[in-house]
Parts: sequence; structure tokens; C-alpha cells
Amino acid sequence: MTGEPKTPDKFTVINELARRRCFYWQSYEIYGGVSGFVTYGFLGTKLKQNIEKKLRELFVNKLGVLEIESPVIAPSKVFEASGHVGHFKEPMIECLKCKRRFRADHLLREFAEIKESEAEKLSLKEVKEVIENRGIHCPECGGTFGEPKYFLTMFKTTLGPYSEAVGYGRPEAAQGIFVEFKHLYEMTREKLPFGVIQIGHALRNEISPRQGLIRLREFTIMDLEFFFDPEEPNCFILKDFENETLRLVLAENKLHGSEEIVEVAVKEALEKGYIKAEWQSIFMALAKKLLIDLGVPAEKQRFIEKLPWERAHYAVQSFDQEVYVERWGWVEVSGHAYRTDYDLKRHMQFSGTDMRVFKRHEKPVETEQIVVKPLMAKLGPVFKAEAAKVAKMLSEADPKEVEVSIRKNGYYMLGKHKVLQEHVEIIRQKIKERGKRFIPHVVEPSFGSDRLVYIALEFAYHVKDGRAILSFPREIAPVQVGVYPLVTKDGLPEKASQIYETLINEGFIVECDETGSVGRRYARADEIGIPLGITVDYQTLKDNTVTIRDRDSWKQVRSRIERLPELLHKYFRWKVDFEDLGQSFER
Amino acid sequence: MTGEPKTPDKFTVINELARRRCFYWQSYEIYGGVSGFVTYGFLGTKLKQNIEKKLRELFVNKLGVLEIESPVIAPSKVFEASGHVGHFKEPMIECLKCKRRFRADHLLREFAEIKESEAEKLSLKEVKEVIENRGIHCPECGGTFGEPKYFLTMFKTTLGPYSEAVGYGRPEAAQGIFVEFKHLYEMTREKLPFGVIQIGHALRNEISPRQGLIRLREFTIMDLEFFFDPEEPNCFILKDFENETLRLVLAENKLHGSEEIVEVAVKEALEKGYIKAEWQSIFMALAKKLLIDLGVPAEKQRFIEKLPWERAHYAVQSFDQEVYVERWGWVEVSGHAYRTDYDLKRHMQFSGTDMRVFKRHEKPVETEQIVVKPLMAKLGPVFKAEAAKVAKMLSEADPKEVEVSIRKNGYYMLGKHKVLQEHVEIIRQKIKERGKRFIPHVVEPSFGSDRLVYIALEFAYHVKDGRAILSFPREIAPVQVGVYPLVTKDGLPEKASQIYETLINEGFIVECDETGSVGRRYARADEIGIPLGITVDYQTLKDNTVTIRDRDSWKQVRSRIERLPELLHKYFRWKVDFEDLGQSFER
Repeated sequence: MTGEPKTPDKFTVINELARRRCFYWQSYEIYGGVSGFVTYGFLGTKLKQNIEKKLRELFVNKLGVLEIESPVIAPSKVFEASGHVGHFKEPMIECLKCKRRFRADHLLREFAEIKESEAEKLSLKEVKEVIENRGIHCPECGGTFGEPKYFLTMFKTTLGPYSEAVGYGRPEAAQGIFVEFKHLYEMTREKLPFGVIQIGHALRNEISPRQGLIRLREFTIMDLEFFFDPEEPNCFILKDFENETLRLVLAENKLHGSEEIVEVAVKEALEKGYIKAEWQSIFMALAKKLLIDLGVPAEKQRFIEKLPWERAHYAVQSFDQEVYVERWGWVEVSGHAYRTDYDLKRHMQFSGTDMRVFKRHEKPVETEQIVVKPLMAKLGPVFKAEAAKVAKMLSEADPKEVEVSIRKNGYYMLGKHKVLQEHVEIIRQKIKERGKRFIPHVVEPSFGSDRLVYIALEFAYHVKDGRAILSFPREIAPVQVGVYPLVTKDGLPEKASQIYETLINEGFIVECDETGSVGRRYARADEIGIPLGITVDYQTLKDNTVTIRDRDSWKQVRSRIERLPELLHKYFRWKVDFEDLGQSFER
Repeated sequence: MTGEPKTPDKFTVINELARRRCFYWQSYEIYGGVSGFVTYGFLGTKLKQNIEKKLRELFVNKLGVLEIESPVIAPSKVFEASGHVGHFKEPMIECLKCKRRFRADHLLREFAEIKESEAEKLSLKEVKEVIENRGIHCPECGGTFGEPKYFLTMFKTTLGPYSEAVGYGRPEAAQGIFVEFKHLYEMTREKLPFGVIQIGHALRNEISPRQGLIRLREFTIMDLEFFFDPEEPNCFILKDFENETLRLVLAENKLHGSEEIVEVAVKEALEKGYIKAEWQSIFMALAKKLLIDLGVPAEKQRFIEKLPWERAHYAVQSFDQEVYVERWGWVEVSGHAYRTDYDLKRHMQFSGTDMRVFKRHEKPVETEQIVVKPLMAKLGPVFKAEAAKVAKMLSEADPKEVEVSIRKNGYYMLGKHKVLQEHVEIIRQKIKERGKRFIPHVVEPSFGSDRLVYIALEFAYHVKDGRAILSFPREIAPVQVGVYPLVTKDGLPEKASQIYETLINEGFIVECDETGSVGRRYARADEIGIPLGITVDYQTLKDNTVTIRDRDSWKQVRSRIERLPELLHKYFRWKVDFEDLGQSFER
């Protein structure tokens, strides 16, 4: 699957274009480069910001999800509680000869044709057996491999001047939300459901990342945690999405070796139990919409359900949204996990902070409670100095258990202490419960910003008359408008500068280019995906009109300068089409 | 200087408000909190984003500076070259009794009244002497201190599975720009000057941070590196800024113990040599403007020049932009360093990559060059097996030096080899130089995003009639408009919802609040700084008008619903005042 194909594929072509045109490239090249780190240039940074802006529009502005920003570094305790210290590791194997280290499961995929989903199931012992039985040797030097072992793929550091204060770079932004849940819940006036999103850098110390923007050690993650009451799981905006179709690959089919795509409406997916949580289904519908907005047609998207052993340790159901790309086939762009109460419960256990929320009953519910009252007068003579301790332990024991044991055996063992019926009084109290406490459930859509940048580039890229064009959807194009004086004399550049200033002040992202022939400037503009090109020519000086050129059709219209701000605002808000920008015109 | 004052000061009040109203709080509170880390809630995140947006408007959109995004983690080599591994450290001292660790210079300031600028000059030995002579003991337990030593205040980690691949969290975003200089220069079509900005998280492993948003271990930095030709240092937009006044505290006055503020126009500051680089002066003027836009009046700002021993290792001149805050007095909000060619030169040395740019002379310059030609026929018999080596060494020697030595002494010593006049031919060649290579110089303005958040809060905060108001400048307010149905019946909430939806779709940040009395809702809105409140009342149902309330004056006007989008767009772009929003009205 890896390894360079002979004729350059889209991945190769796009990486070359990205480097040459300042979208992105591998960081630290002057020091030989470091795998898994990229630097975004001017165009890449803007493209990435535009994609993140679309995500904010969808979730923050429209859906009312709340955005927070928490640190990348967290103390060890956070990731012990979240389970990452225990689970966030990959099998690694070292060549005994050249000492290079590899991800064992990747070797199995590459050299033993074992599927990813199968490789993930294997224990270290099984991995070793396959390596030996299939005679897999180091792909770099042909050497023999040592024992496979697990490598924790988090970046480790220390906080402050004490070496025992271990911290990690966060592998996901979700924990920054979970640890602050109580505070965030209070801020939303203690009402469920509500969602919190965080977009920021995250770190995964991959063993040997080799897929450009697809697998990075430092990347931008967009984690949205949506908290709801599991007893009231209904999504109140389901109506708006229920007829949206989703293309699903179900776990049950995968188990039988099939990756058949089942195309169903959201409503049907819920009715048939394909998707367990209503809120999860609408996030999947929104994720599909987002990818369409980024230029990926529905038929190049699917949601593949994870098998139990493929799922992250916190999930009871999860789907990966995948997009079909030329080199790797289906590639994950977002994950949709039903995390239940896993994270909040764990942080409650590890921190001792009550993460439960209080839900008031519509009317108080009367229930009967068993109360075990220690009779000190009886306990004293028997347990002497330990009587108080026994009484305390009794009050902390489960009253139901105490009652059953005494009824059945005549005693109840409290550690080494034998408590008899005569030591206690067991009574029944009626109490009125005004509500109950519970830990909210969570569904999480999680997007990788960098992958979306790559996907947007691959789907924008095409060739017309031998020339490369990045046909970005108009609202994510990193530069919106190019301004070109036809020649660099006779006052044309000055006129172009005025237009440039006007459009900049209106908030557009504009580039003014005076270098070389207009044809070459158009070609460059197409290659970096500028949707519209405004050319100032001699007629401009006569009648204050300019030509506007469409990147994709190469058509031109002629329009009055003073109308440009209004027309362009409408164009970039999809309120008018290119043809509406002026009089059709052939140069 | 530290330690809680008795009546709560603004810092205390703002931190309390920030926590309660979801601006920010210390991270990981459920695990006891970790000093130097904060989490921004919904309002803080938006406020911070708005501040960063203003900075982008100023530098990226208007000035045309290019934005990039590089990783937080970098390989060790980057920070060895940048000088951080050698210099980025603080003197630390440990209490022998309780084992707590302190920044030694902070102790000197606190307990020996030694000024920051003086403390920074002291060697470890001198620090130790002061501690002993002044009898300074552990402020926590009274114990005796051990030997002071340096602590490297970068977060250290390893990249990938090899423990020898050391990496650090970046303490500044600047290096991510410098290491990519060649690539960025090519992208700007090899023209100087140009500027590159990066806004992102940075990490400094402070020994014991205790000042809220002012001193964080993880923070957001905005580093702008402006590259120019030191032989053409003129700023072509100086005209636009030359009359802007700056309040300077000059190093020469500081040396005499004075912090006198010299108020001068940019032009004068350059003429008098107060500021060395023209570009630096305009960035200082822009920084002043930015702070004014964030709500800090000019008289609460100053630029203080750093003394040689206070400056970072890379700077030949630097000013800190400071703002006067209640608790700490003058606090740095941005740094303005003239970094010269220091960073690029170091990366050139450490990486072997040529960081020089080529400058073409207007016409080729003819120069004379001395060439020392080894005569192999003569060298051979004398140096035998070493003749070739001697010839090579000769070609690498400075020809001028060889000529002078031979003329003066009759020989030139090449290590142990004595080269005589007869061994070489010294000739003069005329050559045409078409240009020359040089390393660009850099001025850097650098802002701390988090400090600006705190500053914006402190300057927005005031009390009116016993009520707290955050009077943010209208374009940085985290929520722009509040919508309030007077009562929750008779169709008023539905009407409010419609207005809410309309405004959201127009791109405004809007909150709809139905809880409690209108008075309480206004009070809450004032406390989180919402500039405008729209109230839907019974008259709305009759004539489709609403009241608009001003946060600061509490005045109200009445306006037609259908005009709201247009009016509000104008208001938030500072095109109209509050009074222009409708008919004056007293409730």
C-alpha cells in the first residue's frame, strides 16, 4: 500500500504543488526534516482557517455549540483517568541489526497481507508468531526483528522543575472538555443537552508516520463533545435531518467480510438500530454536509462502523467517516463515537469530583430506604476500642447487603469483624426523592483539520488543457480575488492598486499581481485556486469597467468598478452566480 | 509585590468574574489545578479570537504580512541554533528542608528589594552571596537554601521511538519562521522587505508561575518577523506614521536610575537615534494603536528600552510595550526586538543551508581579485606525497594574507608547511560582480495573546451604580447582541427567536435570554459586556419595533425589526453611533 507508485499519483502531484505554491511542506527541512510535522505556508494557513471557519459556522454559530480553548499539555493524571496511559500505545518492533523501529501492525499489513482490522486484534505474542512464521525481515536492511513491545504514543514531558511531575501532550482535545465538565455545565445554567467544541493542536508520537497530512505527529483536531441525558436521548432537531441519506458500512457485514454500502435515510438508520444515538446520527448528517461543502461528492463518502476490537477504549459504537482518495482508497476524515458516560465516570473516580448532574423529578417520588443503625450500647462491649470504627464502616456498607446477609447467615462480615443481628437495628424509611443524579452520556464527532486540508486539495485538483487548476468551493479558496493590471504602465497599476485597496477594506482576501504576461498570471491564479480575476485594461481608464474572469470556466464578464464590493459580497455568499457579475465578454 | 492584597483589587475581581462568567480559569482544577495553565470558556475563547482577529486585520490584511502555521514541537537542533538551549534558563534555588524550588531572582526582588533589571545581571555565585548575606530563607517553611543552579525553561520530550531524538516545545513562534526562511523568501518572489507572522501556542516551563494570564506555561504568542535589507532600511510607509507619538523610557535614562517618559513623534525618535530601525518604529506605532483599539488609553502605555543585560540573547535593541495595571504596575504586553541577522546566521551555521539572499547590483561592479596559483612542478619535489594537500590548503587560504606574508617574510606558513615565493604564482584578476549575497535583518514585534485578554478585561471593567460592567470596545465584545422577550408568554419568545435566527444568519454573535426579570438579564448582559440588548415587548407585536439598549449609557432607542441587520452591521463597523440606531425612548 505504501511506497511511491511509478507515475506520479495525485498525492505526489498535490504535495509537489503544495510545496511549490506555499500551501504546506515537511517542517525543519534545513535540519533534514522530521516525519510527521508540517508547516503551512500563507495559502495553506488560510485554507486551513477557512475550513475551520466552515466547521465553526456549522456547529458554533448555527447549532449553538460552545467553543473553549484548553492547553495542549496536561498532567499525567488526566490521561491516566482517560485511559490513554493504559491504552494509547502501538506494537513496535526493532530490527536487531540496524536498530530501526517499526509499527509491527503496519509490517503485518504490508508483508503478510493482514487487514488493519485483523492486525489490531493480535496480541504481542501473536504478532511475533506471524513475523516469524512469515519470515518477515527488516524492510530497510533485511535484518531480523527482536521482541515486539508496546510504545506509548504520547509525547511525555515534565511540568515545572520537579521531575516527578509528569505531563503529556494531549492526543485529543476531548479531555480538556471532560475535565472542565462541571464548570461548563454550570455555565450553561445546568441544562442538558449541550455541546462543547474545541479546535486546537494535538500530539501523537507516531512510530514512523509516512503519509503527509494524513498521519501527523502534530495536527489540529476538532473535538465536539455533546452531553445528553441517556433517559432523554431524543434529538429535538432530528426533523431537519431525518431524510438526509447516509452511506453506511455496518459492522455486522464487516464481520462477514463484506464492505457493502447500505444507503439509508437518517430516520431509517435509527429505526433499524444501525445508529444507536439520535444525536450521533445528526452529527453524521452534518459531517456529510461539511464534506460536500469542501468539495467531496456524497458518493465519495461513507461511514464505516468499527468492530469492537477496532474501537477506541471509550466507545460503545463508532463510525469513521471516510473519503475515497486516489492513493490509499478510503481514508478517515472524522470519527463519530458514542462515548457514553465513560470519560466523566473515570474522571469522577480518579479526581473524586462528583461529575453527576441533578435531574428534578416532575413530582417527588416516594421510595423506601433501608437504614442500618448501629446500636452503640451493644457494639461497645463487643468491639471495645474498635466500636466507633465498626459503626462507621457499617454506615458506609450497603444496607441491602447487610440485611440480606444477617437474614440468611445471622451475621455480616465487616472485614474481620462479625456483626450480629443484635448489634444493629434495621429499619425502613419512606423518603421523598425530589430528583436523581446521573452522569450524562456523550456523543463525539471529531475531525482532523489537516486531513480535511488534504482532502479539499485532492478534490479541488484537476487538469484543463494541460494546466493545473484548484477548483476550491468559492468560500474556502485561500485567496478570493486577483487584481491584474494588463500592463505595468499608463496608470493601469495605480488603478489596480485602488481596486485592491477598496476590496481589502471590504474584508476580501485579495492579491495584486503585476509580474509577467496576463496569461501567465491567470495560470498561476488557477493553480492556487483564486476563484475570480479582475483585470484592469485600457478600457478601464475610459469607462471605469473591468473584466472579471472565472477560474473554472475561464469565461469573462465586464463590470463597473463601483459595483464590485456589492457583487463580490453576494458572489462569495452564494447569492449570485458568476454570470450575474457583469456583461458576458470575449477577450 | 506578589501576595494577595487585603481588599480585593482588580486582578482578584476580574479573575473571580472570569471564572464565574466563563471567560477563563485555572486548568485541571478537579486534579488540584496546575499553575501556569488556563482554560478559556465560551466568552474567553471568543474574546481571545476577537483580539487575534484585530491583530490579523492590522498586520495581515492591511499591512500584507503573510501568516504561516508551524508545529509547537521542534527538534533540539532548532533551539541549539537559536541559542535557546544555551540561554533560555532561569536561576533556581531549592529549599534544603521542604525541597520546594523557587526562581532565585524572584526571591531577590521580593526579599532583598533588588530590581528585576539588577537581579538579571547577577551570576549564580552573586545570587548565592546575596541570599546568604541577606539571610533569605524559604518563604514556605523557613528552611535554608541550597546552591542556586540554572533550570532550562523549555518543555523537553522525545520525537518518535528513539530516546536520543530530543525535542522541545517552542518558547516562541519565531523559530518556525526562521527555519523556513529560504522557502518563504522564494514564495514572496525573492523580494525584500517582507513580513511573516505566526499566531499559536507556545510553551515555557516556568519554575513557579503565579500571575494568572500574565505569566503562563502554555500561552498564545503572536510573533511577526519582518525581513529587510540592512543597506536599504527605509520604511516605505513611514510617512503614514511619522507624526504618531510614542512614550519612551530610554535605556540611557534607566542607567541613571530614571524611568522618565520621553514623549516623541516617531520621526523624532528616529532622528534622535532613540529607535534604531525605521521598521521597528512603525511596528511600535501599530502596537500602540492596537492597544488603544483594545481599550487602553495612550497615557496608560509606554515603551521601555531594555538594558544590554536585560535583552534576549538575539537582540541589539529592544523595547517592551508596557501597560499600567492596578496590581503590578507596568506589565509587558508586547516586545519589539531588533534581532538583526542573528537567527538566520545561526541557522546557517548549524544547518549548513545558505540563508543569504542575492541582491543584484544596478550595474555590474568591477573588482580586482588576488589569486594564488600553486605551481605543482615546484611543489612536487619539495612536499612529495603531501604536495596535493598543500595545493588544496593554499587554494583555501586567504590570498591577501598569503601575498602579504610572502612579500614581508619571504614565506607563508601553511600549518607545518613553509610555502616560498617560488612555489606559487600570485596574479591579479579583474572580475565583474553582478550582485552580492547577504543575510537579511529582522525586526520583530511579539505579542502575548493571553496578556492582551487580561488587559482588555481590566480596562473594560468598571462599576456603575454598584453593578459591574465590562465596557469592551464594540468589535471585541465576545457576544454582540442580546435578545430578550419581556415575558415568556403571549408569543414574545417566538418573536425573539425569529430575531435571534435572523441575526445569527447575518453572522452576528447573539444570545437569547429568557430567564428571570428583564432587569436581571440586563445586569448579566452588562457583566459579560454585551454592547446591545434588543427587547421584544407588547408593542413589538403591534408595530414590529423593538427597543435597543446601550450597555454603557443604559439609554434605549426604538427601532424597526427589519432595519436591524443593516443598522447593526453599521454599528459594529463603527459607521454609526448608538443614537443613530433608532428613536430615543425612556422605558
